[in-house]
Amino acid sequence: MKKMLFIAGLLCSQLIISQERPDPQPAPDNFEQFSVGMAGYTFVNFDLDKTLEIMEKCDVKYLCIKDFHLPLKSTDEEIAAFHAKLQSKGVTGYAVGPIYMRSKEEVDNAFEYAKRVGVKLIVGVPNYELLPYVDRKVKEYDFQYAIHLHGPDMPLYPDADDVWNNVKDLDARIGMCLDVGHDTRNGKDPVKDLEKYHTRVFDIHIKDVTGPTKAGYSVEIGRGIIDFPAFVNMLRKVGYSGVCSLEHERNMKDPFLGIAESIGYFRGVIAATKEVDN
Amino acid sequence: MKKMLFIAGLLCSQLIISQERPDPQPAPDNFEQFSVGMAGYTFVNFDLDKTLEIMEKCDVKYLCIKDFHLPLKSTDEEIAAFHAKLQSKGVTGYAVGPIYMRSKEEVDNAFEYAKRVGVKLIVGVPNYELLPYVDRKVKEYDFQYAIHLHGPDMPLYPDADDVWNNVKDLDARIGMCLDVGHDTRNGKDPVKDLEKYHTRVFDIHIKDVTGPTKAGYSVEIGRGIIDFPAFVNMLRKVGYSGVCSLEHERNMKDPFLGIAESIGYFRGVIAATKEVDN
Repeated sequence: MKKMLFIAGLLCSQLIISQERPDPQPAPDNFEQFSVGMAGYTFVNFDLDKTLEIMEKCDVKYLCIKDFHLPLKSTDEEIAAFHAKLQSKGVTGYAVGPIYMRSKEEVDNAFEYAKRVGVKLIVGVPNYELLPYVDRKVKEYDFQYAIHLHGPDMPLYPDADDVWNNVKDLDARIGMCLDVGHDTRNGKDPVKDLEKYHTRVFDIHIKDVTGPTKAGYSVEIGRGIIDFPAFVNMLRKVGYSGVCSLEHERNMKDPFLGIAESIGYFRGVIAATKEVDN
Repeated sequence: MKKMLFIAGLLCSQLIISQERPDPQPAPDNFEQFSVGMAGYTFVNFDLDKTLEIMEKCDVKYLCIKDFHLPLKSTDEEIAAFHAKLQSKGVTGYAVGPIYMRSKEEVDNAFEYAKRVGVKLIVGVPNYELLPYVDRKVKEYDFQYAIHLHGPDMPLYPDADDVWNNVKDLDARIGMCLDVGHDTRNGKDPVKDLEKYHTRVFDIHIKDVTGPTKAGYSVEIGRGIIDFPAFVNMLRKVGYSGVCSLEHERNMKDPFLGIAESIGYFRGVIAATKEVDN
């Protein structure tokens, strides 16, 4: 009986400890319309388990699903297992992509994939000539299609102006994933571009860069030239209600501290700019 | 000849890459009077190499030296080697401590140690009855002595009020290391305490805590209840020119992501609150 009481006591004390120091301690609700998320590409060199471990440590709950974590040819069972694993960490896969689409068949495959994954947002990079076809597909599926802009590195969609000019006359469900780093590297101001184009901004990649040219490269948020306080204030001004996903492209074989620093910095900016508004 | 040109070309391209992407990219100068640093205690479970590796990744340049990294009995050669190692990473050891002092002999040892280490700031925890002796020593050495406050966990110096009341009639070089977490855990407001006592605040430990009582525990900065935007604004208002050192007491066997997140958050708050002042 004494032994049982002792064991009961141990269990109680364990319970109290676990109540006092839950792990991980979630970041407080920021009461914003937008959310902080993670672009799957950040973990191009790591599997889903590592991705979720780091997301849990940083308390990030939204993932843009990349094909190297969930291939386009996944079976329904594999997709279900993927979602179950995310759910076990409290993570929601809110979109798929970026997916490059160079033919109608690749557009078809991407829309079917998104449908089977159960998301209504595709981050995509379609060849320009496929845009009329994408226009038909968003009507057919009622999905949003966010074109990922990629700065001066490649000929497709260098910045927000380019995406806007190509989609403004298409279905309102075709817009952009505003990559603030690449937009900056193409000499543009992502704060102004968010203001101008917010009706077509369906997803955002956050990162920082060292300069406003092709030579500018990606660094931890706060170490580059992007004005994040102004950007966060603009998110509020335009009422952005999507996800700001960290696409960390620095030290990609050992990115973990940079990821945590970037998420911390972005949250610090959210907290500090909020005080001004209240 | 072709081969030599090829090799020369390779070397050039390597050079260009390393010029374009220096690693690590330093955080930009924040143009503040205060600095961001690291309390050695954060790395209680790790050696100096690991400490400096993480500090380099987070771009933190000031270290408060703990005795487990540089014992009080270190020889002058060991101290020189320690400084050389710090210098190789661009790090300055700006103070020693916290050092507990329970006798005059321990006070003597601490002052001699600080002198040999070459710093003019000791973070210490002297028994109350030793304060008159500490008063004599700061006059003798012309050092600053910052008493570390430790919340409700121990009887010595629970909060800033207690340190102030014990030192206000002593030499002006005796003050406090304002631990914002422990001050909060003792039910006090570190923002107000910084304003009230700033003339005697020589060092600051930054961290966050979950509640204003003994049950509150240390978490990543931004995940607790401390108002860091207000705190940073107060640092500016009182013209604090010392170091704000992260004393991270969360997941101390695997603290690295939490350290990076905390440093990032604090820097984000500095950047975002600065915009208001300009």
